[in-house]
Amino acid sequence: MKGIFITVEGPDGAGKTSVIERLIPMLKEQLVPALVSTREPGGVRIAEEIREIILDPKNTEMDERTEAILYAAARRQHLIQVVLPAINAGKVVLCDRFVDSSIAYQGVGRGIGVAEVADLNEFATEGLAPDLTLYLDVPAEVGLARIAQNKERKNDRLDQEKLSFHEKVRAAYLTIYEQQPERVLLVDATQTINQVVAVCLDQIKAKYPTVFK
Amino acid sequence: MKGIFITVEGPDGAGKTSVIERLIPMLKEQLVPALVSTREPGGVRIAEEIREIILDPKNTEMDERTEAILYAAARRQHLIQVVLPAINAGKVVLCDRFVDSSIAYQGVGRGIGVAEVADLNEFATEGLAPDLTLYLDVPAEVGLARIAQNKERKNDRLDQEKLSFHEKVRAAYLTIYEQQPERVLLVDATQTINQVVAVCLDQIKAKYPTVFK
Repeated sequence: MKGIFITVEGPDGAGKTSVIERLIPMLKEQLVPALVSTREPGGVRIAEEIREIILDPKNTEMDERTEAILYAAARRQHLIQVVLPAINAGKVVLCDRFVDSSIAYQGVGRGIGVAEVADLNEFATEGLAPDLTLYLDVPAEVGLARIAQNKERKNDRLDQEKLSFHEKVRAAYLTIYEQQPERVLLVDATQTINQVVAVCLDQIKAKYPTVFK
Repeated sequence: MKGIFITVEGPDGAGKTSVIERLIPMLKEQLVPALVSTREPGGVRIAEEIREIILDPKNTEMDERTEAILYAAARRQHLIQVVLPAINAGKVVLCDRFVDSSIAYQGVGRGIGVAEVADLNEFATEGLAPDLTLYLDVPAEVGLARIAQNKERKNDRLDQEKLSFHEKVRAAYLTIYEQQPERVLLVDATQTINQVVAVCLDQIKAKYPTVFK
């Protein structure tokens, strides 16, 4: 029996990490199949090594296409070592970010182009798409204000980008949502975290009632 | 004035490195524009870091597509930092391996597919192709025998592949040559190194007589 591949997407500051942290124990308790919660690079050594290159603040000379290609490489290795084995074992995979992030951040945010980045990721995924994507929607100003308040958050290269970049990223996510409503569910992430978590859980249950106890 | 982009290709053991070493002083003496001799990763820090991941013998779990994507990432960064600036400055660039190597090794040798690997590299190069490719042709057995005799050569992961892999690689190069005879020139690399070097120099001169003194 094939498992279920769920991704969580959204601009920075949408609250993905906090929402996922609260969803995990609820899903573990309520799901029949085992839950695998992961995010790229997911502890996969080769993908971790690739991510170190991407996020190294020294690497200011990195070309935007090089960055997009490296994300695709880390994604491929994580997919092969973590996501696919879990899905093939009938588990439910909850993944923090996937191809939609590259399309929004590199394709639109950095201006490389949606079709180009989609093709690149098609090579990496061989067409494997999530069964369900929870898109946590938040205006760029709200997301950036949350990041600024969160002092514990490590300030990596991506967080230094400007508001206009984050606005483009959100617009890209909204386009993906409009074009693939059967896969992508929009969750209003300006709500309280408890509300966002409840909506996410409800939506997973509504789509896959038979895998819940 | 735009420069000239020349690549040297061939299966392992074709003698690329030795041929290029001898060509460099001849071209430096005889060319009007400056010569830039390079090979990926070409001293470009980000590309060097990517190559370390690819060639690390520990990384036996590396998926074949991950490997192909990483080669494309290193290629992109080297292209942006070394090849393009030199071409835009009117120089002659002599590059040891380029996209044809990925098509031959990953696309055919590893069986990923020619069209897939070509598309991936199209993303990395944005369509920039060499003006001239010198393909050093050698049968797989001859190439492998030369590698075995060369005790100084470092034994990396790729050299451990079997004869059938090298035969596929050569067949792929021959197909590229047949499909793009206006770009690719075949040089019989079973000849002595002096003969091979002479043929390469003659072919560059024949194609670009005006850039020679």
